[in-house]
Order: sequence, then C-alpha cells, then structure tokens
Amino acid sequence: MASESNGFSAAAADRKIITCKAAVVWAPGEPFVIQKVQVEPPQKLEVRIKILFTSICHTDLSAWKGENELQRVYPRILGHEAAGVVESVGEGVEDLRSGDHVVPIFNGECGDCAHCRNPNTNLCARYRVDPFKSVMVADGGTRFSAVDGASGVRRPVYHFLNTSTFVEFTVLDAACVAKIPPAAPLERMCLLSCGISTGVGAVWNTAQVTSGSTVAVFGLGAVGLAVAEGARYRKASQIIGVDINPDKFVLGNQMGITDFVNPKDHDKSVHEVIRELTGGGVDYSFECAGNLDALREAFLSTHDGWGLTVMLGIHPTPRMLPFHPMELFDGRRLVASVFGDFKGKSQLPSFAEKCMHGNGEDKINLDGFISHELPFEDINKAFELLEQGKALRCMLHL
Amino acid sequence: MASESNGFSAAAADRKIITCKAAVVWAPGEPFVIQKVQVEPPQKLEVRIKILFTSICHTDLSAWKGENELQRVYPRILGHEAAGVVESVGEGVEDLRSGDHVVPIFNGECGDCAHCRNPNTNLCARYRVDPFKSVMVADGGTRFSAVDGASGVRRPVYHFLNTSTFVEFTVLDAACVAKIPPAAPLERMCLLSCGISTGVGAVWNTAQVTSGSTVAVFGLGAVGLAVAEGARYRKASQIIGVDINPDKFVLGNQMGITDFVNPKDHDKSVHEVIRELTGGGVDYSFECAGNLDALREAFLSTHDGWGLTVMLGIHPTPRMLPFHPMELFDGRRLVASVFGDFKGKSQLPSFAEKCMHGNGEDKINLDGFISHELPFEDINKAFELLEQGKALRCMLHL
Repeated sequence: MASESNGFSAAAADRKIITCKAAVVWAPGEPFVIQKVQVEPPQKLEVRIKILFTSICHTDLSAWKGENELQRVYPRILGHEAAGVVESVGEGVEDLRSGDHVVPIFNGECGDCAHCRNPNTNLCARYRVDPFKSVMVADGGTRFSAVDGASGVRRPVYHFLNTSTFVEFTVLDAACVAKIPPAAPLERMCLLSCGISTGVGAVWNTAQVTSGSTVAVFGLGAVGLAVAEGARYRKASQIIGVDINPDKFVLGNQMGITDFVNPKDHDKSVHEVIRELTGGGVDYSFECAGNLDALREAFLSTHDGWGLTVMLGIHPTPRMLPFHPMELFDGRRLVASVFGDFKGKSQLPSFAEKCMHGNGEDKINLDGFISHELPFEDINKAFELLEQGKALRCMLHL
Repeated sequence: MASESNGFSAAAADRKIITCKAAVVWAPGEPFVIQKVQVEPPQKLEVRIKILFTSICHTDLSAWKGENELQRVYPRILGHEAAGVVESVGEGVEDLRSGDHVVPIFNGECGDCAHCRNPNTNLCARYRVDPFKSVMVADGGTRFSAVDGASGVRRPVYHFLNTSTFVEFTVLDAACVAKIPPAAPLERMCLLSCGISTGVGAVWNTAQVTSGSTVAVFGLGAVGLAVAEGARYRKASQIIGVDINPDKFVLGNQMGITDFVNPKDHDKSVHEVIRELTGGGVDYSFECAGNLDALREAFLSTHDGWGLTVMLGIHPTPRMLPFHPMELFDGRRLVASVFGDFKGKSQLPSFAEKCMHGNGEDKINLDGFISHELPFEDINKAFELLEQGKALRCMLHL
C-alpha cells in the first residue's frame, strides 16, 4: 500500500483501537503517570496522529497544577506543543492523509465560519482555543481511556486544549492539525505548535512591527524570546528585554535583544527607565509575563501618540485591567494576540517554510529555543525544569 | 489697505489692546457675567481672532461646574467651539493673515514635532488638548484681563482648552487655528471646531468604517449623532443608537440611525439586545456617553474576533477600565479618539470642503445639529438648555 513506506497501514489502522503509552494526570499537581492508554480511531472530521516530539509550555504547567478551578478535569492528557505524523483520518477529512507531517494547533481553523472567512481574526467560531473544553466536538466524548491504578476500573481520559500531546497517539479535530513541509525537521517544527508562532506572530501579524522600530519585551520565557527573535528578523532598531531573572539575558542576546532592564536594578519604575533609554518610549511593547503590574509598565513604556502594547500573557487574576479610561486618550493602544494571529491551518505551512529556508539574519533561530532534550518517560523532570525557570523548551522524544 | 475690506486694519490692530465683550466665569457654577474685558495683542506665534459664532459643548458645561478640582481656575473665559475671522497675527505667523476665515482647534498642530510628523497621531507634543492648561505657551501669561465686580480690581482672566471663545476677540496660538475656505458659511463651520469633527472623524479616521459595516452608538448627544452621520455617509448597513432619552431618537432618524435601543425598555443588557439585532454583534461601537457602564456595554456589543470600540466620552471617575484582561483575548479591541483623529490645521480644510460640496447622501448634514440660536448675551440660557438635554447645539451669535 502507498502509505506503508511511512510505517503505517491506512486500511488496517483505520478502525482499530491503538494501545500505547501516555503521561496521564490523575489529580492536580500529582506526578504524571506513564501508563498504557487506549486511543480510539478518529471519528468524522477527526485525525489520529503519531506524536514524535512534544515540548512543554506554561499553559501545561498551569493546567497540571489546576490553577483555574473550572479547568480541573481529570484524568487528563495534557500537552499542546508537538509534531508528528498522521496515522489515520476519519470520514470527511480531505486535506490530510496518513503519513502527512503535521503539528497540532490548539487554536483551530475550520476555514468555513464567519470568523475564518474574516481576514482580521484567527478565532474560529467552532475550534478556537478553549481552556474549558475537555471532550471532542463531534460527540462530546473522549477518545482516550485508561485503567485507574487505585480502583482497577477503566475510565475515560479527558482531552486538553484541542490537542493532548503527552501520548504516543492522539486524536484531534482535523481543524486543529496543520500540515508542514515533509522536508522540515519535526523536532524544530514542534516549536511552531505554540510558543514560537505566538511570539513571532505577535510581532509580524498583530503589531506588524516595521524596520527601525523600537520594541520592549516583558518576560523572557520562550514566548518573550520569540517576540525578540521576530523583532530582530523585522530589523527593529532597539529591542529591550525586561525580566527579573538575569539568566534570561544570556539567551536573550542570541535573540537580538539590545538592552536589558532588570526591575530589581532600578529605583525608578521600568517605564521611566525605558522612556529614558528610547527618548520617550518604545513603538511597541509585548507583555509575556502574565502579570498585570508588568502589563501596566509595558503600556506606559510605549510612546504616547502611537505606542501599541500587545498582551500575550495569560492573566489568571480577579483583578481588572489596571488602566484609567482617560489614559487611553494619550494615544497608547492595547490589544491581545492569540497564537500570534496566525490562522493555523492556512498560514503555518508558509511560516514553517520561512523557518527552514532563511539564511543568517533572515532566518528564525529555532535551535536557540531548545534548552533540554529528554526521553518522554522523564516528563516529570521536564516539568520541574520549566517550573524552576531552568528550561526554555524541553523537548521530549517519543 | 488690502485687508480693509474685511473691516480690519492689520497695521493699526497689530499692537493695540482691544476692549470688548466677554462671558466670564468667576467661580464654579456661577452664572456667566457678560462684561468688558481687555484683550492684548497676539505675541510671537499667536493670532487674535474676532469670534462671530460660538456654540457650547459638554466640556464647557463640565468646566463651568468645576467638576474636576484640578481644572478650577477662575476667572476664566470658557468656550472652544467657534468660528471667526483673523484680526491680527503675531511675529512669525506665516500661514495666517488678517481676514482669514478660521475655526479654533482645541487640539493644536505645530506641524513640526515628532508627533505631528507621525501620520498615526494627532496629538501634537506642544499644543495637544490639555484640560489643565490656563495660560499661553509663549510666556505663561494670559491675554485677557477684567475688573472684578466685587473688589473693583483688574485681574488676569485665564484661558481654556487652547481656545476661549466666549468673547468677541480671543488670542490663540497659531497652531490652534485652522483656516477654512472663505466661501464656507461660518455658522456651520463652527460645528467643525469640536463635536462634528470628533464624531465624524472617529468613524472615518479612527475606526475607518467601511460600506456595509454595522455600527452602534452609545449616547446620542451632538458627538454621538455626528458618529451616526459619519457612519451613514460611509454607507454602514445598520446604525444602532443607544440612549435613555427617547427624544434623541427623533433627531437620530435624520442622521441615518436605523435601530434604537433604550436600555430602559429591556430586561436584558444592551449588549445582548444588540447581539440579537445583528446576529452576533456590531463591527464597530462608539461610546459617547462618558459613562463606564455604557463603555462596557459598547465593548461587549461588538462582534468577537474583530469588533472595535472607539471611546469618545470623557470619564471623570476614579474607576478603572471595567474589563478583565482575559476578555481582550476574544478579539475585541478598544481605542480612544481625540478630535476624531483629525490633524486640525492640515486636515480640517479638506473636511470643511467635503461638508460644503456634497449632495444628498454624500453630504454631511451640518444643519441638523443646530437646535437653537441665541444672541451671545443669552449664554446662561444656552447652558441651561444643554444641561436639560434640550439643546443639541445652541449657536450663539456675537
């Protein structure tokens, strides 16, 4: 059969349950249990994927801890940044087939709703990111099940963020799967599944930073560094990184950051420091810290009249926006960006091409984001590294 | 002399003090005193103008009442919406001369600062709107003086909002004076000095509403109705007016409003009503009520994914913005607009041309905004009409 060269038999795989390894969370903050799960075949408009690489993002960390009460759904398979190969497709899937190289996208694109047809948004009416969703759209059920070690009973295992990638085989809606060029290295492409696309896209698509602009980035995790890398690529003249962890500044240098501000080093507020550094404020600031005080500083760090702040951080706080309405009349603007305003299915393939084929300054430096590599079984150690601020991206090999 | 035909002798007027009539506020909320004031000649880069028409805006009402403690500077000449003729110009003024037809602009444009050279803002570094300013830039002094009726002592009279138009002759920075075509009727052009430009400009320049869009306007005073008129001109397909005063709906009909929502008529919130009316929300909403609850409803009335709310209302409140940061991730945006994002000196002349020369649907209906006409001496009555919500614009003839 045509697809046998990929190691998959489309006909045989089509309807069968796969038993494979997963990292299951049974309760908030409890160590991942590496165990066998059963993965059902894809239903209508669904796709089953063999995951080859997955990495960990702060959203996984937060869901693992159960920081948001409404998101506490267990047992669950977390993970949303990954890359793999299509194993089989469900009825009605026409744009993907067994063997395709793909990345899961937590912010899906059906291609047909009013939102998908509108060039100004990447929030699909049906498959957009939804942290509260834990089942498949088609039937409200799950495609995973596992035996509870305590009771010996087989239970459904819930999905996460349209993706669930801490497992050897996963089932996704076809709307949440982006095809990537077969020649692209899957380990690097894994990064496009969330963090890098979010950061670079916020610069290219949301803010549309132009050559010679000045930029400040608050929070130098993977997303913040991807903002810096996107701004460097766009030839921003000054890229100011802000973080309370000076270790981040070493990495930041590789991503084109020209100035560092550690709030702990200054008596005055960060926005005053940045206004002095730039003669009035930056053209663009990006908040990647998930902290409202940082958001206010990011906002005030931009130049009055035309400054734009792009919010990327997740803010699990009861506090409202820390701005007085009259402050908007100074001409500073604030917008949020989801997945870097990329329409995942339709625009990620060309972004992947750009990441592969550039040279020197015209290349997005993906390698710099992979700080650790571990076997999948060491997922608990990988979470520890991220939580301690030691890992930028820890790549898990399946 | 060339300028004598306008009734002014440039040479003679140049250096002399003019004694004329003004409406002076001596203390917050006290009736205007119609009395003689002395108006000094214009200094370097200043212009002296004979005011022929002036109307009243809510900002005057608020300043008259002294609603903001920091703005309580008296005695003062209020007023910022007007039209007149240049009487004389100070040293260095090259773009204006005696006899020019002009409107004062409270949000000035020097034409030379980084802001004025940036196409994305109309906030001049030096002459932008500043509600706390009460003296001239050149020397920190005032150009008006009047005798205090109580003490018999002559005292300086303070300026207001870069303009001060409740007086027969006023002195402004040349940056705060826009030339208009000599053939344009000055009484109508008076409206471009604030309210109409603010409303129409918010639609044309800030939001850039396009044909077929849906629009909601919160607060149907002159600015709100100017928003409706600007949206009608741009061929918006649906223009929803929101106000708690049903009298406003009569006028609104002339300005192209297609649907009215009176919050008092509904059990559900306004944004729910509007989402039902429009199948998900409007493309653009405009908040012209100066009320934070209205601002929140305006924001939620827009369509998720691409809705844009433009804030025009002044919010003298200690409350912060009533939005949770995570609400921004639904793709709704909020921006503020000052003077409709018109660069006053350079862009108002062509807007004035547009208001004069259109026909039928392609004409901005200025006449509809003048609800009352009174002699200047009846200014106290005019304020009463505005405060009672009876007047849209009351035109005072000097």
